[in-house]
Amino acid sequence: MKLTILGCYSATPRADTNPTSQVLEINNHIFLIDCGEGTQVELRRNKIKFARIKHIFISHLHGDHFFGLVGLVSTFRLLTRETELHIYGPKGLKEIITLQMKLSESWTNYPLIFHELTSKDSELIFEDDKVEVHTIPLIHRVYTNGFLFKEKPGDRKLDMNAVLNADIDVAYYRKLKQGANVENEHGEMINNADVTKAPIKTKSYAFCSDTAYNEAIVPIIKDVDLLYHESTFLEKHEKLAAPTKHSTAKQAASIAKQAGVGKLLLGHYSTRYDNLNDFKLEAETIFTPVELARDGKVFTI
Amino acid sequence: MKLTILGCYSATPRADTNPTSQVLEINNHIFLIDCGEGTQVELRRNKIKFARIKHIFISHLHGDHFFGLVGLVSTFRLLTRETELHIYGPKGLKEIITLQMKLSESWTNYPLIFHELTSKDSELIFEDDKVEVHTIPLIHRVYTNGFLFKEKPGDRKLDMNAVLNADIDVAYYRKLKQGANVENEHGEMINNADVTKAPIKTKSYAFCSDTAYNEAIVPIIKDVDLLYHESTFLEKHEKLAAPTKHSTAKQAASIAKQAGVGKLLLGHYSTRYDNLNDFKLEAETIFTPVELARDGKVFTI
Repeated sequence: MKLTILGCYSATPRADTNPTSQVLEINNHIFLIDCGEGTQVELRRNKIKFARIKHIFISHLHGDHFFGLVGLVSTFRLLTRETELHIYGPKGLKEIITLQMKLSESWTNYPLIFHELTSKDSELIFEDDKVEVHTIPLIHRVYTNGFLFKEKPGDRKLDMNAVLNADIDVAYYRKLKQGANVENEHGEMINNADVTKAPIKTKSYAFCSDTAYNEAIVPIIKDVDLLYHESTFLEKHEKLAAPTKHSTAKQAASIAKQAGVGKLLLGHYSTRYDNLNDFKLEAETIFTPVELARDGKVFTI
Repeated sequence: MKLTILGCYSATPRADTNPTSQVLEINNHIFLIDCGEGTQVELRRNKIKFARIKHIFISHLHGDHFFGLVGLVSTFRLLTRETELHIYGPKGLKEIITLQMKLSESWTNYPLIFHELTSKDSELIFEDDKVEVHTIPLIHRVYTNGFLFKEKPGDRKLDMNAVLNADIDVAYYRKLKQGANVENEHGEMINNADVTKAPIKTKSYAFCSDTAYNEAIVPIIKDVDLLYHESTFLEKHEKLAAPTKHSTAKQAASIAKQAGVGKLLLGHYSTRYDNLNDFKLEAETIFTPVELARDGKVFTI
């Protein structure tokens, strides 16, 4: 799993910072997460192939998280894309995009499929044989979801010495990999755990932006390998965080600690701060390891 | 009058080129003309004060001319703007912007006034005591206007020697400046032209993007000092220009010649061309002088 930060600042684009957008490469998928203004340019700068993006996840309808979407959808059309594009985001997003296509008389020539989200509970919104994506209901000024990206457990691994010693027919290997107990050639029931090993540990990534401090997400993001949690403010501006429904670095770290995540990644910084390292230092008083998102930075999970 | 090109390429933004947007400084106004994605970043790069922009003119509802507008409107809100913002553009633009404000629950705290355009004839859409803005109906795939920016003629200049010789009372000077004939102190009618000189020549700028070759605009843009006329294609791709309702460099030059403009400025280049100088060379076979718009370039009129 590889995460590329295209933009990680709050508010609007500036000459040297970009609003929220990330690319997650997971099991041959390229998932685009949020799409602030200028995302298509950042995709090009980071040499990410447009054609490989088939799923876009939009957390909420504040401009710094979706104003770049209509431009990207439109560019796909100009590039004569034919592949389906799936967009997951709050109800209303479809109306925004289709209104603009209608008025510019520029309908896409590829299938554009909206999956509008309205649930206040975590739900499975994407699944194939190797990956699942769940929503993470967040608390913000408008309806907002984070997203949990999980690899599915693969097959159990055969312990070949044990399998051969147990005289199990080759025809049963597939069932063993799937975790079933099977009969051996002598009609004896063989316990799966005695002849197989656990599958390779799966990886997971949770994206939580924007949100007030919200312990309700802890069970959903429990034990993820990497947690991106917004930290718009430092603790000294906690009084700004509460009414705007954002979090401080310390609050993000508290969530990371309670969820026992592998690593915390901070982002969505208010542009009022010059020294991002203060976010790291503040979070590290509660939880380690902590990393700072920065535009263009790549994290391997 | 000063024209700053923020972006001058057709289609969508790339890492090194911007879609259409221009800033015209005219008699203390800062007029923003078209607003492709990323315009707010280009405004910052070109150090143009956001607060001074009070009028935005949008030619048509293709994305490369307006996808940056909603972000700019939103940024003005975050900057706690209080000044009125007037937006002139095709019918539908208000619906696009207000839908997004509604869904993000982010209404502007400053007066946002839309002037939606529907006329197929040239009309006066802005006027104060020194400046006029008229639409230039263009031929494109969707409803499109160019814009003509004209300084109003100032007062006539008094020829003080002649005025004094003619024994005209000071009380009549204002009428003289306005072009009236007046009586002198001996009751004789004095011909205005004998005691005044023509006002300082006014300047004018015409912005025409996007459009098919259209001689109907010639009378509207007659004698302008600077004509920006799109040249999406070179003559060798004229077969692409016709169906997409764009122009070639040669066609732009032909319009410039017929209108007797002071200077032709080319832009809205298709990104298929590496060497922009070919546009200049092609246009110069018909008309001179020709200049090439380039992102970040400034022209004084």
